[in-house]
Amino acid sequence: MPESQTVLLWKNLAAQLRADSIRCTTAAGSGHPTSGMSIADVMAVLQASYLRYDYANPNHPSNDHLIFSKGHACPVLYAMYRAADAISEEDLLSVRKYGSIYEGHPTPLIPHVDAATGSLGQGLGIAVGVAIAARKIEKLSYRTWCVLGDSEMAEGSVYEAMAVASQEGLDNLIAILDINKLGQRGETALGHDISKYRARVEAFGWHAIEVDGHCVEAINDALAAAVAHTGSPVAILAKTEKGGGVSFLSGAPGWHGKALSASDAEKALAELGNPSGLIVKPQLPPDEQGEAVVADQPLNLPDYAVGQSVAVRKAFGDALAALGASRANCFAVDAEVGNSTYLEFFGKAFPERHFQCYIAEQIMVGVAQGLDVQGKVAFAATFAAFFCRAYDQIRMAAVSRASLRLVGTHAGVSIGEDGPSQMALEDIAMMRSVFGSTVLYPSDATTAAALIPLMADTEGISYMRATREATPVLYPKGTEVKLGGSYTVREGNDATIVAAGITLHEALKAADTLAAEGVHVRVIDLYSVKPIDTDVLLKAVRETPLMVVAEDHWVEGGIADAVLATLTANGVAPKRFAHLAIREMPQSGKTAELLAAYGIDAAAIIKAVKA
Amino acid sequence: MPESQTVLLWKNLAAQLRADSIRCTTAAGSGHPTSGMSIADVMAVLQASYLRYDYANPNHPSNDHLIFSKGHACPVLYAMYRAADAISEEDLLSVRKYGSIYEGHPTPLIPHVDAATGSLGQGLGIAVGVAIAARKIEKLSYRTWCVLGDSEMAEGSVYEAMAVASQEGLDNLIAILDINKLGQRGETALGHDISKYRARVEAFGWHAIEVDGHCVEAINDALAAAVAHTGSPVAILAKTEKGGGVSFLSGAPGWHGKALSASDAEKALAELGNPSGLIVKPQLPPDEQGEAVVADQPLNLPDYAVGQSVAVRKAFGDALAALGASRANCFAVDAEVGNSTYLEFFGKAFPERHFQCYIAEQIMVGVAQGLDVQGKVAFAATFAAFFCRAYDQIRMAAVSRASLRLVGTHAGVSIGEDGPSQMALEDIAMMRSVFGSTVLYPSDATTAAALIPLMADTEGISYMRATREATPVLYPKGTEVKLGGSYTVREGNDATIVAAGITLHEALKAADTLAAEGVHVRVIDLYSVKPIDTDVLLKAVRETPLMVVAEDHWVEGGIADAVLATLTANGVAPKRFAHLAIREMPQSGKTAELLAAYGIDAAAIIKAVKA
Repeated sequence: MPESQTVLLWKNLAAQLRADSIRCTTAAGSGHPTSGMSIADVMAVLQASYLRYDYANPNHPSNDHLIFSKGHACPVLYAMYRAADAISEEDLLSVRKYGSIYEGHPTPLIPHVDAATGSLGQGLGIAVGVAIAARKIEKLSYRTWCVLGDSEMAEGSVYEAMAVASQEGLDNLIAILDINKLGQRGETALGHDISKYRARVEAFGWHAIEVDGHCVEAINDALAAAVAHTGSPVAILAKTEKGGGVSFLSGAPGWHGKALSASDAEKALAELGNPSGLIVKPQLPPDEQGEAVVADQPLNLPDYAVGQSVAVRKAFGDALAALGASRANCFAVDAEVGNSTYLEFFGKAFPERHFQCYIAEQIMVGVAQGLDVQGKVAFAATFAAFFCRAYDQIRMAAVSRASLRLVGTHAGVSIGEDGPSQMALEDIAMMRSVFGSTVLYPSDATTAAALIPLMADTEGISYMRATREATPVLYPKGTEVKLGGSYTVREGNDATIVAAGITLHEALKAADTLAAEGVHVRVIDLYSVKPIDTDVLLKAVRETPLMVVAEDHWVEGGIADAVLATLTANGVAPKRFAHLAIREMPQSGKTAELLAAYGIDAAAIIKAVKA
Repeated sequence: MPESQTVLLWKNLAAQLRADSIRCTTAAGSGHPTSGMSIADVMAVLQASYLRYDYANPNHPSNDHLIFSKGHACPVLYAMYRAADAISEEDLLSVRKYGSIYEGHPTPLIPHVDAATGSLGQGLGIAVGVAIAARKIEKLSYRTWCVLGDSEMAEGSVYEAMAVASQEGLDNLIAILDINKLGQRGETALGHDISKYRARVEAFGWHAIEVDGHCVEAINDALAAAVAHTGSPVAILAKTEKGGGVSFLSGAPGWHGKALSASDAEKALAELGNPSGLIVKPQLPPDEQGEAVVADQPLNLPDYAVGQSVAVRKAFGDALAALGASRANCFAVDAEVGNSTYLEFFGKAFPERHFQCYIAEQIMVGVAQGLDVQGKVAFAATFAAFFCRAYDQIRMAAVSRASLRLVGTHAGVSIGEDGPSQMALEDIAMMRSVFGSTVLYPSDATTAAALIPLMADTEGISYMRATREATPVLYPKGTEVKLGGSYTVREGNDATIVAAGITLHEALKAADTLAAEGVHVRVIDLYSVKPIDTDVLLKAVRETPLMVVAEDHWVEGGIADAVLATLTANGVAPKRFAHLAIREMPQSGKTAELLAAYGIDAAAIIKAVKA
């Protein structure tokens, strides 16, 4: 095709992308037409001349990936699908309507969407994970494109992602910054000062290419340069106008997140030439061979002698390394604390499957999610408290229907001297309140090790809370473990003690002391907090006059809340109930001192039983 | 003092800071001596020659602030206190012991500590807030110094803080980067490549000064240049060695987070010359006049007519503007969504008391906390979902015993077409599980407006969940409102419906429909979720055979969990209980469609009552 025709095609496609962005949002009566119009020219050149994607086969291993981090601009993304004939006119006009998969922000209900976006600053982190999969694991040539808005360049998560991308040398990753100058309520912090964006991305080791985002010839040059660049990720800094392409919208304030009225839309569409019906499919991906499937080897989980003292976090490390030896598709993502979480056991055994994000929890979760996009089973671990830093990423991963395996060590006051900043006391609450999540809190090394392969096979967000301190091994290898399971470790009908993790050991001490006094309490090891072993809890309430829940967690949102919710949902209430949990801000001290001071040790449990 | 004597003083003080860092951690048997030793020379010159701080009067309005973002390095901070004779030898040797305020990471239990640190990357954001207070509010000349580790430069939160600091021109803020090259488990991402740190900080608008962090003369020059610099914040890039000053620790791997054995300590102290007893107090702060106290004006809260349709978020905006008019000490911190949260009403009325952080929730909370350090009452608002991005900051603010006033708008599926990425469905769970928090969820504009001054007067972390949609005003102005309060909006003994926010209106519709059929249900507007109105709930359970909780929140961690926890704690269980909450991933749609689809509308409530 002679160049002039190509240029015309780009321009016509861009006009149609704008028109369709307007049409679908006006039909919806809400949405963000102007935020997509600014990047329409770049998207037109991308789709027509650079993207390699088979819309008929979204799972093609060599498809490029296109992640819209500025998810609110999705009308232009949906318009791209329409221009590729991948969706129908009806689909396009269903945007934002109940029952349509073309939602207000993109989600993977759409087969061409890798990850839900809409919480700004998150798309690049996931893109980094996908690009790592391509470069470091699959050795495939597909590219990952990530479209970012300029407003989201204020989010720190973007810089975490940039740092890891350059560290890993991801020249298969191209970020497109839509620098349209206007945020939600006026000008962005940096406006159209492209040099400041350049300085930032270059400071994080990226190659920057500036371009007039409304000149298709210049865009073509920029994209050509981007794909030719090697050695580092590339950021295309596209200077654009919000609402670009339509005179009364272009660069005009007051149009953020507003659909055009029917009459305004008519005016805009007329100015665009009422484009419609143009089909421009991207190139098909190359026919590359994906990584060879390596057959699973037998899984040899560690074997701990009952009574031996082993930290649950160490069992996690042992088990993950064992899982890695068994499964080639198992990966680990670290936030520079692998020697505390014991993720380093895996890292030392399989350095090529271990990715180091340094102290940056948001990108750690982003990389794990990006690997999940490509079907890899990735575990991410840090101190349980520091998953708070990535809670928005975890929330959004659930919207993405992603599977993440998260392990948080150093939970609770039992960590001791390091003090409250390092003590996760809200992690159960946080993780329970994630859609479709699984929350595990093993009390011994055997259980922890056995749960790791279950997490690998579990869809959605699964979380293991792991105790720092060494505690006695309670169960022999091979003891049955399941999501939603529990162990009744002591039998008795005078009371039931429900505990997990560090407090389970206090409960056992309490039970043994009480037994010597003739009081026989049942002790339930509730290693699966969500799902929860409702039957065993119902039985305990029916058979014992008192239930004591002891947990190393704030009083809100933890094990007791989970227990009461399931009991009540089943129409049963404990006759008497005592809840031992953390009710004041803890301080530094020795583990035993703190368990006693905050009322979750054996003595406190005994007192609660006797009360 | 001739220069040579000053140099000697710096060196002797640095040696003592190192020695005391070792002594206190060896006494504790744990801790981080080497992470403080790297920055000991800079701290010695700072304390001896630049810091202006009256240890006898930590609340002096013109005191400099010193925030140790690398909180684990606090042994050197405590050693500085000791060298200033602000704490005793006993205090120093009590580090990390139960009952001592000198914890494993610093907290404001120590009067000289502004904010708890230990979750990396957070100190600078708080420092920015303090520096804003000095420059923009108090017009005082004190400086804010923030010591950061190189490992935490991987946290995106640092760059959010840097962006806002340069945007605000905070040349009263000086960051000291302790670039000691070694992280927890080996070399950091950037090692000793100081040029990369320089590029980053300059890209974010800071002035960078490189210095050999172990040459006191050079440090003196760097600090002099830093305090002389105007127009932008300054970052001192100190090239240091972890464990610096002791031959077998300096730059040696394997010493992170380890106390020295008694014999190693003896060797190290001998090498340092066994320094002890040197007292070097900082200069006293200047005797400046703080801002004039402006007397409060009468508070004129908005008056909404009962039955009028007003969004709770708009009432928040109206009330905050009214509070601003009443109290000069009231401030607002924005994350570029003020036109959605209606924080902009305040911003437009009091632009000099409104701080814009753009789309960056971590620094928004950091600035609010920094203002709180200086006794300002600051409200921060964004979409409720996006507070997830700052959960770690909020958690740490509670450790800091800070007071934050947070307002999250656009809660729940009721927001409609924007889809799940924008729907906060975990915010009640998240905020309940913050130590000492207050969680409010007003159902109408009058309640929301009345709660805003209460939040201003509430210590700790207070959170208001605000509905996006306009809903009918239920209560006339002047209706009593209190933390821990509720309204019984319909009387009846056939069942109790507990709701708040959007579902309260569904409950009222349900109650009225049921009343027409002769079924009289009690409806409780539970606008205060924490603290909770236990008495009213207990009475309802005693007087009605069924309790229905309807909430626009995930099933976990929300209103129902709070209700069941308090009932159970009081030995009472509902005879029958139904919980209407979100149990599947919602999609885009109209508000009414979504309330119906996910089973929290009037029809669902009626069905639950009749079941």
